[in-house]
Amino acid sequence: MPHTLRGNVVIGQSGGPTAVINQSLVGVIEALRGKPGIEKILGCVHGVSGIVKEHYVELQGLAQAKLERIAVTPSSALGSSRDKPDAEYCKRIFASFEKQNVRYFFYIGGNDSSDACRIVNETAREHRYELRAFHVPKTIDNDLQHNDHTPGFGSAARFVACAFMGDNLDNLALPGVKINVIMGRHAGFLTAASMLGRRSEADGPHLVYVPEVVFHADKFLADVDAVYKKWGRCLIAVSEGVHDEHRRPMAAKLAEMSGAPVERDSHGNVQLSGSGVLGDFLADLIKKQLKIKRVRADTFGYLQRSFAGCVSESDAREARESAHEAGRLAVSGEHDGSVAIQRVSDAPYKVAYKRIELADVAAKTRHLDPSFIVNGNNIADSFKTYALPLVGKLPEIDTLIEK
Amino acid sequence: MPHTLRGNVVIGQSGGPTAVINQSLVGVIEALRGKPGIEKILGCVHGVSGIVKEHYVELQGLAQAKLERIAVTPSSALGSSRDKPDAEYCKRIFASFEKQNVRYFFYIGGNDSSDACRIVNETAREHRYELRAFHVPKTIDNDLQHNDHTPGFGSAARFVACAFMGDNLDNLALPGVKINVIMGRHAGFLTAASMLGRRSEADGPHLVYVPEVVFHADKFLADVDAVYKKWGRCLIAVSEGVHDEHRRPMAAKLAEMSGAPVERDSHGNVQLSGSGVLGDFLADLIKKQLKIKRVRADTFGYLQRSFAGCVSESDAREARESAHEAGRLAVSGEHDGSVAIQRVSDAPYKVAYKRIELADVAAKTRHLDPSFIVNGNNIADSFKTYALPLVGKLPEIDTLIEK
Repeated sequence: MPHTLRGNVVIGQSGGPTAVINQSLVGVIEALRGKPGIEKILGCVHGVSGIVKEHYVELQGLAQAKLERIAVTPSSALGSSRDKPDAEYCKRIFASFEKQNVRYFFYIGGNDSSDACRIVNETAREHRYELRAFHVPKTIDNDLQHNDHTPGFGSAARFVACAFMGDNLDNLALPGVKINVIMGRHAGFLTAASMLGRRSEADGPHLVYVPEVVFHADKFLADVDAVYKKWGRCLIAVSEGVHDEHRRPMAAKLAEMSGAPVERDSHGNVQLSGSGVLGDFLADLIKKQLKIKRVRADTFGYLQRSFAGCVSESDAREARESAHEAGRLAVSGEHDGSVAIQRVSDAPYKVAYKRIELADVAAKTRHLDPSFIVNGNNIADSFKTYALPLVGKLPEIDTLIEK
Repeated sequence: MPHTLRGNVVIGQSGGPTAVINQSLVGVIEALRGKPGIEKILGCVHGVSGIVKEHYVELQGLAQAKLERIAVTPSSALGSSRDKPDAEYCKRIFASFEKQNVRYFFYIGGNDSSDACRIVNETAREHRYELRAFHVPKTIDNDLQHNDHTPGFGSAARFVACAFMGDNLDNLALPGVKINVIMGRHAGFLTAASMLGRRSEADGPHLVYVPEVVFHADKFLADVDAVYKKWGRCLIAVSEGVHDEHRRPMAAKLAEMSGAPVERDSHGNVQLSGSGVLGDFLADLIKKQLKIKRVRADTFGYLQRSFAGCVSESDAREARESAHEAGRLAVSGEHDGSVAIQRVSDAPYKVAYKRIELADVAAKTRHLDPSFIVNGNNIADSFKTYALPLVGKLPEIDTLIEK
């Protein structure tokens, strides 16, 4: 029987919001409420910055109906933060925890967030302050190590797949070249999801560019030319993170060339989303070099992660269950860790939740398996076996013309 | 008892696709199939261009299950066209109709499409060729005269409303200025729909710019500054059609300034969609002039009209019913016309379908009622009474922080 650690709980949400990040929040609350030792359950507002500002909201008294409404609401209900705590910042977090007698800390986020969780945890250990620190996984990028996939990805991938299903039919109705720019700095999972609704070779996306492959403008133009000659149209998925052989993102290069200020976050990442520059540049390149008249570019932007009403059921369930597991681990006496989703079987689709070390997931990136990438410009059908169970049943569609 | 006109039917789809344009296609087929005089039911591929190329698909033999799958599929199942037939083009259409003994013509589209329908109809009359020519309404722009609203608008408006509900929460979680550019060249209905999920004054969009109001960059900056000072964030909806006092669209001006070729369609309209230039320019303006760091812009683009799985039930029903009405008019002996949706009552929401003259809807634009526009930069709550029945029940959301 583990000793009962008495104290308050802090739960935070960090990084980019997702459609199911509040399922995780509600999952932690449900797992802890009424358990031995658990006193107040506090939500820190805007992630770690809410801890240092002592900006908390009490969560333990919320009615289940309210929790259920929160759970189905997209984006971080507690607000989010991009702050990456350094040693000094962690001292302030620790001071706030000590003052509030916080003994349980749950941080819902991606790999940068799990690193923040790890640093806070180590600071507490150095002060011999007993703390249970858990990272609850979340990222639409799907790039956490030791995870088969991550909560948030399935719903964002569903959005991308549905958008491409419709846009493929739009492009079939009014033929031309269409470029869609998808989120994903280092990992191409979300961009790969563009092909999940494809029914045949004639369906777009006909070309898919992920950050795992070095991007060459000449190769890109030759690819587009070949597809356009074959099908009389071309639908393209491009990750915002595509980069040259020096790992310089195209979007950042283009933004600099245009004279716009290049913005970096506290993790040193160049800002890629929230601009149409990459899509517009590629569209212009095609118009000029290939002399194709109808060329359009859309950048899916923030809609991918927060659209209200486009949620994968399995994603929502797993976001909640992985948070239940984090709560269960903490009250059962584990000191720290992250919860990883691991796949048990494809058919029937079945997952298990496993405790892993914070250091195993912190600040590391998982990439698309090379076997999914075809010719450097497309995604293999085998990706459907992997990803379709995560996005759920796609809308049924049918057509009267094929080309 | 009207005389029975024996012959074949041609149905076409024109202009920008919508989520429910195939409901209209299926509606026409259902209304005509098996009726006296009706022989083959042909779909012309890619609108009027399919007529002159004699590119038809036979529709009368399709199983109901296939029709139902087509009906729920977004984008034009027969393909679309932006061709605007002139006198010469109409002679070729007429020659194709004569050759194929086409006596019934249904053209599903917006105001440009109803004009095409009108010209074809007049050409037939000049040749004393008996033709029944009907326009079936469709446009996400919602800008057809004598219509309370148009099929396609409700679903596109639902997409915009859901996107803003999520993006408002995203902007609340990670505060800054966020600009979203919405489709709509002359009419602001779709941009106005951005406010349908707003629960209070604190919710975004905090500013809404429609083409019915002349756009001034200085006024825009002052508006953003005031909102940002009040709420610490600012979510903005901008129509792609916003223009200066000379009615020159900002997007076209900016594209020209950037050196990109400015594209016009066969109706003389400058191409506005399929580029992020307007949003990026406004974001840059705010960064430079107001010194706000986190400024993002997304352009919703083609997702608004073809996203698979975001459909308003009333929109789908009315698209089908208005097509039923067009078919019923044709077989009951009416020679031509367009079907207008008119509102009978708000509570309960109830509409009627009314035959109007082709000339009454052709090439004319309806605008947002001035009473819906507040201060030139927002939309009144009364717009909800008008538009909510058209988009259907929005997702339920709840929050833990308000500011």
